[in-house]
Amino acid sequence: MEWRRGRLRLIDQRALPARLRYVECSTVGDVVRAIRDLTVRGAPAIGAAGAYGVALAAAGAETPAGVRRAARRLRDVRPTAVNLARGVDRVLAAYVARGADGALAEAHSVAAEDVAANRVLGGFGAELLPPGARVLTHCNAGALACVGYGTALGIVRAAAEAGKRPHVWVDETRPVLQGARLTAWELDRLGIDHTLVADVAAGSLMAAGDVDVVVVGADRVAANGDVANKIGTYPLAVLAHHHAIPFVVAAPTATIDLATVDGASIRIEQRDTREVTHLGAARTAPRATSAHNPAFDVTPAALVTEIVTERGIVRPPFGPNLQALVGP
Amino acid sequence: MEWRRGRLRLIDQRALPARLRYVECSTVGDVVRAIRDLTVRGAPAIGAAGAYGVALAAAGAETPAGVRRAARRLRDVRPTAVNLARGVDRVLAAYVARGADGALAEAHSVAAEDVAANRVLGGFGAELLPPGARVLTHCNAGALACVGYGTALGIVRAAAEAGKRPHVWVDETRPVLQGARLTAWELDRLGIDHTLVADVAAGSLMAAGDVDVVVVGADRVAANGDVANKIGTYPLAVLAHHHAIPFVVAAPTATIDLATVDGASIRIEQRDTREVTHLGAARTAPRATSAHNPAFDVTPAALVTEIVTERGIVRPPFGPNLQALVGP
Repeated sequence: MEWRRGRLRLIDQRALPARLRYVECSTVGDVVRAIRDLTVRGAPAIGAAGAYGVALAAAGAETPAGVRRAARRLRDVRPTAVNLARGVDRVLAAYVARGADGALAEAHSVAAEDVAANRVLGGFGAELLPPGARVLTHCNAGALACVGYGTALGIVRAAAEAGKRPHVWVDETRPVLQGARLTAWELDRLGIDHTLVADVAAGSLMAAGDVDVVVVGADRVAANGDVANKIGTYPLAVLAHHHAIPFVVAAPTATIDLATVDGASIRIEQRDTREVTHLGAARTAPRATSAHNPAFDVTPAALVTEIVTERGIVRPPFGPNLQALVGP
Repeated sequence: MEWRRGRLRLIDQRALPARLRYVECSTVGDVVRAIRDLTVRGAPAIGAAGAYGVALAAAGAETPAGVRRAARRLRDVRPTAVNLARGVDRVLAAYVARGADGALAEAHSVAAEDVAANRVLGGFGAELLPPGARVLTHCNAGALACVGYGTALGIVRAAAEAGKRPHVWVDETRPVLQGARLTAWELDRLGIDHTLVADVAAGSLMAAGDVDVVVVGADRVAANGDVANKIGTYPLAVLAHHHAIPFVVAAPTATIDLATVDGASIRIEQRDTREVTHLGAARTAPRATSAHNPAFDVTPAALVTEIVTERGIVRPPFGPNLQALVGP
């Protein structure tokens, strides 16, 4: 994600791994579309994209009311990740206080803070990985999901940089295949050893003793430590608990939302059911068959062993410990 | 599955649900190919197909040694389901005792017994489903997986015939999508209410209280009650246990193998990793990314609440109760 000559330049994540293609956004509408159609995805990444979206609205011929409308539009595209609303609101406040230039400066801050936070977070998290750790991850919480470096993959990456030679089991992550398409692509480029598996294989891998730790990202961490993340995260947490395997959530403080009391209060985005009934353009299920396609699930705090942030590792009891970390 | 003018006629399950197409097998090589490439799949179905394969070898110009070789070839195509080896061995023994006509008669018996067993099994299992039951199932254990009627879907079907109006959550069942392609197709034709989900959605459905019972088939039930079935069955069993939801295995006695002491003794077939790295012909993962693709997993007996057979419902302790049911 890059700001270039007044435009937001994004890797088109829909085209990976076949092609490395870029999309340029010059209006807030472009950014809304890019977030909606998953050109850009991942909680920190859409937080920064939303921030730049408000900056684009502010730089345009928009009235203050227009910028506010643009902010509302952006916030509503994807409701589950707190980063989006937060990035948008920060830049909107900067715009109100300091105008279009202030808005752009704030968007740059949102982006820069993300990269910096992830590097620090990665370093803390790497301490949780033994040498040769076999790490199972779900979806993509790598550099693509962020402005850079990555959260869950940031931990793996920091462990690799520390010479720990981790091996990653990559859940393909149906229905959108962020694991197969994006996480495998990042790990391949980083030269980190990895093996792709269907999501359903996690159970037998754990039963065989082939997983040392599960590391995932987060779209929103509630005040009590409940974690909303990609659909399929909760089953992994139950499996990890059943096998007494640590379940580590990588979450920069920008993803922790003390205003959300618990997981039940998190709005779960429902996505187009064609993601399930089709593979690409081809329909796989019968025409009459309907589908259910929640994009996220909620993992109760009781199944989480550590939440890794850029301010350190948080352990249970998460309620008071998260409050102490990011509360007023 | 039909025997017609000296040939075995199979529905081509690879073409469903887009097209209802048939494949005719006139040699043992045709049957081996059909089992290997999943034209026919499902433990009881490959058991009957293997039985007819030996009958085809016997009817050809084969010597007794040739028929034995054919039997060995068939048995080795897919190692996990006990039905295949069993169907093959039954027909081979009949051939040795009574020649080619005896072999064909025995193959017809294997097929007829399967349909009869499934109808009775379905009736027993339907008693476990409350009216309006929300049933989650994995893979396809329907008529397509058998000679007819189905095992897990036989239970759902019998419940529907009894006026219980079940609703089925259909796991799409990556990587081969037997749920999306086959189970949804069967339920659609039967007029049974169903909704397709990605496999990863089972956890949040259970957490929301939307699943009353999990019903799956089996490829082999060991003497202690451990169950080998499609990869992804074990995670469902762990999730069901975590949510105190009954986990019901539909297994005709032909699938129970007292000669296998426990799940650890069951050979798990590893399949082509392209099933995971590709969707159809299109590669989804990076070229350098390797994959791991076990076709089955093992669910320990402790996570199973009932095993439904055509001789009645078996409950824990499974060791002695299975022995009493099918032992000498």
